[in-house]
Amino acid sequence: MGNCAPLLYTEKFTTMQNKIPIGILGATGMVGQRYIQLLEDHPWFEVAWLAASDRSSGKTYGEAAKWRLDTPLPERIARMTVAPAEPAGAPRVIFASIDAAIAREMEPKFAEAGCAVLSNSSAFRMAPNVPLVIPEVNAEHLHLIEEQPSRKASGGYMVTNPNCSTIGLVMALKPLAERFGLEQIFVSTMQAVSGAGYPGVASMDILDNVVPYIGGEEEKMEAETLKLLGKLDGHSVAPLAAGITAHCNRVPVVDGHTECVSIKLSRKATAEEILAAWAEYKPLAGMNLPFAPVQPVQFAAQPDRPQPRLDRNREKGMAVTVGRLRKCSLLDWKFVLLSHNTVRGAAGATILNAELLASLGKLETAAETAARA
Amino acid sequence: MGNCAPLLYTEKFTTMQNKIPIGILGATGMVGQRYIQLLEDHPWFEVAWLAASDRSSGKTYGEAAKWRLDTPLPERIARMTVAPAEPAGAPRVIFASIDAAIAREMEPKFAEAGCAVLSNSSAFRMAPNVPLVIPEVNAEHLHLIEEQPSRKASGGYMVTNPNCSTIGLVMALKPLAERFGLEQIFVSTMQAVSGAGYPGVASMDILDNVVPYIGGEEEKMEAETLKLLGKLDGHSVAPLAAGITAHCNRVPVVDGHTECVSIKLSRKATAEEILAAWAEYKPLAGMNLPFAPVQPVQFAAQPDRPQPRLDRNREKGMAVTVGRLRKCSLLDWKFVLLSHNTVRGAAGATILNAELLASLGKLETAAETAARA
Amino acid sequence: MGNCAPLLYTEKFTTMQNKIPIGILGATGMVGQRYIQLLEDHPWFEVAWLAASDRSSGKTYGEAAKWRLDTPLPERIARMTVAPAEPAGAPRVIFASIDAAIAREMEPKFAEAGCAVLSNSSAFRMAPNVPLVIPEVNAEHLHLIEEQPSRKASGGYMVTNPNCSTIGLVMALKPLAERFGLEQIFVSTMQAVSGAGYPGVASMDILDNVVPYIGGEEEKMEAETLKLLGKLDGHSVAPLAAGITAHCNRVPVVDGHTECVSIKLSRKATAEEILAAWAEYKPLAGMNLPFAPVQPVQFAAQPDRPQPRLDRNREKGMAVTVGRLRKCSLLDWKFVLLSHNTVRGAAGATILNAELLASLGKLETAAETAARA
Amino acid sequence: MGNCAPLLYTEKFTTMQNKIPIGILGATGMVGQRYIQLLEDHPWFEVAWLAASDRSSGKTYGEAAKWRLDTPLPERIARMTVAPAEPAGAPRVIFASIDAAIAREMEPKFAEAGCAVLSNSSAFRMAPNVPLVIPEVNAEHLHLIEEQPSRKASGGYMVTNPNCSTIGLVMALKPLAERFGLEQIFVSTMQAVSGAGYPGVASMDILDNVVPYIGGEEEKMEAETLKLLGKLDGHSVAPLAAGITAHCNRVPVVDGHTECVSIKLSRKATAEEILAAWAEYKPLAGMNLPFAPVQPVQFAAQPDRPQPRLDRNREKGMAVTVGRLRKCSLLDWKFVLLSHNTVRGAAGATILNAELLASLGKLETAAETAARA
Repeated sequence: MGNCAPLLYTEKFTTMQNKIPIGILGATGMVGQRYIQLLEDHPWFEVAWLAASDRSSGKTYGEAAKWRLDTPLPERIARMTVAPAEPAGAPRVIFASIDAAIAREMEPKFAEAGCAVLSNSSAFRMAPNVPLVIPEVNAEHLHLIEEQPSRKASGGYMVTNPNCSTIGLVMALKPLAERFGLEQIFVSTMQAVSGAGYPGVASMDILDNVVPYIGGEEEKMEAETLKLLGKLDGHSVAPLAAGITAHCNRVPVVDGHTECVSIKLSRKATAEEILAAWAEYKPLAGMNLPFAPVQPVQFAAQPDRPQPRLDRNREKGMAVTVGRLRKCSLLDWKFVLLSHNTVRGAAGATILNAELLASLGKLETAAETAARA
Repeated sequence: MGNCAPLLYTEKFTTMQNKIPIGILGATGMVGQRYIQLLEDHPWFEVAWLAASDRSSGKTYGEAAKWRLDTPLPERIARMTVAPAEPAGAPRVIFASIDAAIAREMEPKFAEAGCAVLSNSSAFRMAPNVPLVIPEVNAEHLHLIEEQPSRKASGGYMVTNPNCSTIGLVMALKPLAERFGLEQIFVSTMQAVSGAGYPGVASMDILDNVVPYIGGEEEKMEAETLKLLGKLDGHSVAPLAAGITAHCNRVPVVDGHTECVSIKLSRKATAEEILAAWAEYKPLAGMNLPFAPVQPVQFAAQPDRPQPRLDRNREKGMAVTVGRLRKCSLLDWKFVLLSHNTVRGAAGATILNAELLASLGKLETAAETAARA
Repeated sequence: MGNCAPLLYTEKFTTMQNKIPIGILGATGMVGQRYIQLLEDHPWFEVAWLAASDRSSGKTYGEAAKWRLDTPLPERIARMTVAPAEPAGAPRVIFASIDAAIAREMEPKFAEAGCAVLSNSSAFRMAPNVPLVIPEVNAEHLHLIEEQPSRKASGGYMVTNPNCSTIGLVMALKPLAERFGLEQIFVSTMQAVSGAGYPGVASMDILDNVVPYIGGEEEKMEAETLKLLGKLDGHSVAPLAAGITAHCNRVPVVDGHTECVSIKLSRKATAEEILAAWAEYKPLAGMNLPFAPVQPVQFAAQPDRPQPRLDRNREKGMAVTVGRLRKCSLLDWKFVLLSHNTVRGAAGATILNAELLASLGKLETAAETAARA
Repeated sequence: MGNCAPLLYTEKFTTMQNKIPIGILGATGMVGQRYIQLLEDHPWFEVAWLAASDRSSGKTYGEAAKWRLDTPLPERIARMTVAPAEPAGAPRVIFASIDAAIAREMEPKFAEAGCAVLSNSSAFRMAPNVPLVIPEVNAEHLHLIEEQPSRKASGGYMVTNPNCSTIGLVMALKPLAERFGLEQIFVSTMQAVSGAGYPGVASMDILDNVVPYIGGEEEKMEAETLKLLGKLDGHSVAPLAAGITAHCNRVPVVDGHTECVSIKLSRKATAEEILAAWAEYKPLAGMNLPFAPVQPVQFAAQPDRPQPRLDRNREKGMAVTVGRLRKCSLLDWKFVLLSHNTVRGAAGATILNAELLASLGKLETAAETAARA
């Protein structure tokens, strides 16, 4: 991130009283609800437009959504009318969390219409000219937006954040990859039901049970991890040349994905060096991004941590907790990691990407939109 | 098992009306309760003696135990008086499921007194002259009992069954090790709470949660697996020379351990060959052991199986279910396995060991004991 | 039940090798699956025809259904083709468990076509000429089938069993109503998720949660209870003149509805008298109905019972367990009851109704159907 | 509360930089941990002394306690040394949450030594001269402390807060009792496992299960409710002359007790009048007690609310949520209520009592203690 020149952005917003209007595609879904919850009181952004399926369009948000979060649905949002999912009338910045099949058609339309589309959908994550970004990990991949035809035509572009189970893994791995090199990754997940949306996982499938299968998840984790840890190489990203295998499971937990990891490093590292790599990993320090955790990767020293119910809310759900660092008798090291799947792993990921883009001057404020028009 | 010469034992029992009396050490615990449940109506064995901690001694079993199973406590058992945990008065065959620290002192006393001690405790599993046995896997290891000093002195001996998370793994691996050779094993578990006994895991620790730590479990899984798959070599067992690493987790499931496994084989095998190895693996066929599953390793073809609630009771809880066989991008193959931890993984394991020993003529019937006395 | 003249029916079937063919409407649903599971090996009945929604019609059952039970789907059933939900081609005895809205149109069609429709649906339970029956409680209400126009026209008729939460309540109340009179009933339920079918309750709604609302459930419990305890009065049933109020809740339990009950009796009764009323309540004794529990209402003496996981399977899920009988400081007595909601409370209820009708000669065997044709 | 003359207490603290030092008896327990969590950053109070069982005494709190909350254990607290549970060295204000048997001996010792003992224990709740108080409900009962012998001798006294399941019920009932009179109360609870402390309820008892029994709970709820709603009558409280019956159950929920209630009022009330009674019930308005909820009883209009996971944290866990107000066919009205059992129902209850006492000038600041000494 050394090449980012952060504005003192919070100052700008305070001074100008000028926020960036946000539109949400998929506003009634679980991640859509999290966007709304997390953007309430956001210092830079303001929810300005909500779109969902045709069934919801025209209703108030309060009527259209079955609000499932444990903070109240903000009054202002409840009264907003759900718009049709079309670029006409939408603001210049769109957060999208919709089914991949729909995203594949819809997101490019918004980008072509000039919008910055920040997507949690999987449709374009692996597209060569679409950046797949975690701000702490590979901010420099954002340069890929300049490779998108829409960027020149209308100014619009697409940026994606990874799958919920990928984010925690990559945040824990990046500091180690950087310092010691990374050759092999074994990961086995125990994922929360909120990752499947609402209604999502049937209670009959998960009470007193484990489902050792999540469609497409293992493939996503394996591919996304290597792209995220890869190098920007001219017009695309060369994925990290490491071996990776994922086992993905659903467990009866509401929020928080737990992952067991074994790794082989390129050069020997002691436990102390690994702990130091995690502790010192603060690539966004000084940028004043409101959602950036102060300590992105936190080590829990107790032998039985991290645990989803106890650790998922660290730094408002934006930190990843690691623990149980110990020797692996097959590879080099093994450890456990935990991250909040709908905050750090979805809605918060999009928001932090947006904050990074805003600090780079790549998102339009209401005033700028008005001036341009 | 080719060298076992099985009597038609069920016939013998029917003819002689002469069962083998069983004593239970740790009778009030979770596994002790399972012994009682599973031995009710057993064609060869009869519970004849119950012992537990000093606190319970002298009470009726009905008073002493908090029965936690979903079948009724048999009336006859409820009325039995709990004996002190001492060899005097105990029958010649003892099933033991007690804390390792206590087992270390108590089990040898019973063996020295002439008892066959069949133990679910971890205390002696790794002792060089104590067989650690799964009948389908390494029945020939039973010869180790002849290496025990007590065997010559009093006829008594100790035989152990593995840890609950080890059994399922080894049963799934054995047919593959036999046919293709086994070089590396990666396993990540999601274990049921019943594995920790009663009261065991606090509800505050496991509701809406995962505990990624079970004290000593990973070490046990790694060491026991290699001993079980090892070769009897004169006076001890040479462990399998394979690499193995285990990640052990507790999840909110009542019964049934789920395990994600990646393996590297010594020679290439196709998916069909692996499925055939599992399907054809019936080493106890023809021995008529009452608790032996007809199909010890069962493949579930649905993409989201095995699952603990749906598959743990296959063959009365004695079969292991495997599923999701697919290529591993790091090792060769990966799959999921499931076994009932307190049946196949504990009480049923001891019982099946006892059935094997009985069929080999190594357990005394009541008539034989009487004749000797 | 004194007026029922039971044949020694099992004898008849054994002798005649002639079973009653059963058709299932709603065969892929949760209760439909239970019908199939419970009818496997039934001595009198045989599943002969399976129907479900248009989406399933024409597929094999194995393809159409997502089997959710913990015993294997019988091979023979898996290979059967799902038929369209129309009387043509259906056998003369239909078990139905379908949405009330669909049942309202579909069930009369089958009755008019000459079928005995035994329904678990709520559509006709409160219809004046449709019997709502629990064999142990009000077998004499079956005379209402003679009030149905289809009965004369084609021989077909409809019989219903109650809602899953009603059955346990009424079975526990009936012996008390009979002996002491019943004036007021207060009931608060904690109902299992399987009661809502599949996918039914979303895991996001019930993990670490309670949902204190089940649409229409309280109204059903209140009305059905009074009809079941009412008196057959010429052409209809006069409901019991008692006050009743129900609070219905969903809790994170897989199977088994727990209910807290307070009652006011017409005449004073001691605890001993109430226990005796339950213990001696065996109205089906001697009828040899295969699914009839030997002891329909079982008292659990431990202070913390009944509990769903430990008591739901008593008598293969067909018995109701009561416990915690104690004085109520508002009414007279309070107690807790537990019954298996998809066995005793749904599929088993239909089957037991069918067994009663068969023993009364009101269901056609295959031979009889053939003879008539 | 009209007779309370509240100081502008927050002002005093800010001005004087002088907080009230708090000692905690039972500091390592679940409620003890909540005291610590909730008092972190409290504007008036500061944790100054921690005591627990002999086993913990002398250790740092970090060593002695197994911290089970989802916010980090404050560093300052972790380093404090756990003191012996004796008045010597303790501050003048004690929060106690210990077993009733121990409380019965220990709490009077602290009161005799001059401490204000604010207890969550059940030992003295029903003692005639000990106030059992919910600030919103019966603040005037605090006058009972003047009836305690220790009050004259040393200034020390005891004040108790109710059982966790009682508080929510009484807060919902009080506004109705006040406006319409209350004659009969039926309540059936579904209580969270955290109410039983740690380790408390075994996971084997509650996963996929309900336990319809909590020792002593029903008796406490019935007696405490009538005392809380009773009238201060000279030297003691005359309990409300109403009928009440409670059914208490444990369900697999982490935090939040749900209760189903039916009531009979003395005079007819419409639904609108009842909703208004709840909405307008703000007896602490204007007192500026930091933990007092702005809206103590909140009505949730959705048909399936309140729910523990979604509603337990309203007003930081200090509000009670009611819902599903509807006619009761046995009594007059029925509804559901929900309150956070370890916040509103335990630790927060003690803290709010302390805030009320502080605002009445009945708790000593550090400066006052120093001045007196």
